[in-house]
Amino acid sequence: MVKKRQILVIGNNTNGCTPEHEKIAYDIGVEIAKSDSVLITGGLGGIMTAASRGAKDTDGLTVGIIPQDDASEANEYCDIVIPTGMGFTRDFLNALSADGVIIVGGGSGTLSEVCASYMSKKPMVAIRNLNGSVEQYIDGYLDHRENVKIVGVDNAQEAVTKIIELISA
Amino acid sequence: MVKKRQILVIGNNTNGCTPEHEKIAYDIGVEIAKSDSVLITGGLGGIMTAASRGAKDTDGLTVGIIPQDDASEANEYCDIVIPTGMGFTRDFLNALSADGVIIVGGGSGTLSEVCASYMSKKPMVAIRNLNGSVEQYIDGYLDHRENVKIVGVDNAQEAVTKIIELISA
Amino acid sequence: MVKKRQILVIGNNTNGCTPEHEKIAYDIGVEIAKSDSVLITGGLGGIMTAASRGAKDTDGLTVGIIPQDDASEANEYCDIVIPTGMGFTRDFLNALSADGVIIVGGGSGTLSEVCASYMSKKPMVAIRNLNGSVEQYIDGYLDHRENVKIVGVDNAQEAVTKIIELISA
Amino acid sequence: MVKKRQILVIGNNTNGCTPEHEKIAYDIGVEIAKSDSVLITGGLGGIMTAASRGAKDTDGLTVGIIPQDDASEANEYCDIVIPTGMGFTRDFLNALSADGVIIVGGGSGTLSEVCASYMSKKPMVAIRNLNGSVEQYIDGYLDHRENVKIVGVDNAQEAVTKIIELISA
Repeated sequence: MVKKRQILVIGNNTNGCTPEHEKIAYDIGVEIAKSDSVLITGGLGGIMTAASRGAKDTDGLTVGIIPQDDASEANEYCDIVIPTGMGFTRDFLNALSADGVIIVGGGSGTLSEVCASYMSKKPMVAIRNLNGSVEQYIDGYLDHRENVKIVGVDNAQEAVTKIIELISA
Repeated sequence: MVKKRQILVIGNNTNGCTPEHEKIAYDIGVEIAKSDSVLITGGLGGIMTAASRGAKDTDGLTVGIIPQDDASEANEYCDIVIPTGMGFTRDFLNALSADGVIIVGGGSGTLSEVCASYMSKKPMVAIRNLNGSVEQYIDGYLDHRENVKIVGVDNAQEAVTKIIELISA
Repeated sequence: MVKKRQILVIGNNTNGCTPEHEKIAYDIGVEIAKSDSVLITGGLGGIMTAASRGAKDTDGLTVGIIPQDDASEANEYCDIVIPTGMGFTRDFLNALSADGVIIVGGGSGTLSEVCASYMSKKPMVAIRNLNGSVEQYIDGYLDHRENVKIVGVDNAQEAVTKIIELISA
Repeated sequence: MVKKRQILVIGNNTNGCTPEHEKIAYDIGVEIAKSDSVLITGGLGGIMTAASRGAKDTDGLTVGIIPQDDASEANEYCDIVIPTGMGFTRDFLNALSADGVIIVGGGSGTLSEVCASYMSKKPMVAIRNLNGSVEQYIDGYLDHRENVKIVGVDNAQEAVTKIIELISA
């Protein structure tokens, strides 16, 4: 199969996104592009825009899976846009489209994508100490089933190296 | 409009459901039926079956929104079955179909339904001390947006009385 | 199982719906209610409103599965509303929710629901001579697979009698 | 925006696909790749595999949006796989993801994608004389709304040239 490695990056949309989140997300996008993987995001603002910009600045390939039915609503750094028209329900499609997931902060939307990823047993890493909705789950499990751990990492390079290692395992 | 009040009950599927969960869920189903509301669940086992059985024992009306595309996969106490064929993505449809939500324990699936309900600003109550995935959020908010509180309650009657009060507000 | 027989009625929304369509749809709603089946529609205008009104006038039970994420967008004759927030993609959920389908005229939206019903091998009947999008398929098959015929009928009573017969087979 | 032009190719899956269909679809994939557009398909067999193979043989970029929730179910020529887990309901996402649509034969599944494309007013071209489900609609409209014509073309080059022209208009 010619299928490329697909790495989903999730976290704060514009609301709640800090310059620190943006910097980390940008660097993650760069690393993903350097690894020849495809960056998948929810195609909107905040860390989604930052990661996509980082990937495009490094000649990577980016996909945005958005809630609206109109591709023009995606951020300007998405090579490919999937306008689902499904609203936030598309959070589940993001998780299904991922070979692995990197979490950068985030609120309830991110938490739902983490639940979806966990239920589909997708490997996940999270940047520590960003006070996101998954902070208390890092290095642990989301529930009693113990499907897959959310592995804590401390920076962008570590995040991408680790997720690729988990995907290959 | 003739539309009935629709109350969603979420929590443990068969995996992880205890006799205590079942008893509370059954009683919630009874109370929902007595209040002339429609019970909505994810149509599968555990507390979904218990609540539906309680509602049917009290001549209530029950709807099961299931992940499979085959209605026969629903539990035997659903008057109406919506076989979405969407897998766990249907968690979001459960939340969208709710006027209010009652949480009885639960794992990652329940947590994703709670995220979806929170993002749609649906009123929510949760039975305290069931060690479910939302335990740490009870009487607080899911994230920084502070959309809607998950109100803690201690028994089935309180749950239904409170959720109806929140829906009417 | 307590599950009720679920009959989906599809056809023209407000755009393209004539008084003739409305009369037939109303009568179909009446017959569905008399048969103790649940009426499922796409919850909007035209024949959906007419059928729902007919069912409610006969004390039947009605469900509206709508494209929007807001239940208040449904017509006023739906007891239960499923606000999918999925836009027209919800056409497929209508088909999946049907034990059998009755077609009253209709355009491209109806045709997509017919395709979905056909692919799920749901029994279908269509009122003849309404110039709808399925006119040329009546008493024939939608494609080479010959899954299920669209059976032609001439009035509301015949439609409901026939669909119940096909569902029971 | 860096978004690439996204061209959806629909038609027969393995069942019903002839060598003629495959040849035309392969050539369409080649032309799409040469035009620097992204090929979008439903990611399964028949013309979807043929078009994807044609695009990959020409160093193009291919996306497969599949009904299953497992990416390994896609054909081997998809660079990017979106495993929707939504069954045939994903037909609507294919249409939403298209800037323009090329139709190569097809049965009821193709017809539902055509309905979805029509309802979203996406430009469409169809290869004439392939006896597909849209044959009677070519150079006409799907219903009374007259949203968008299905423009008839006679070969792969014409199809891609024409659809790019319609997209740019």
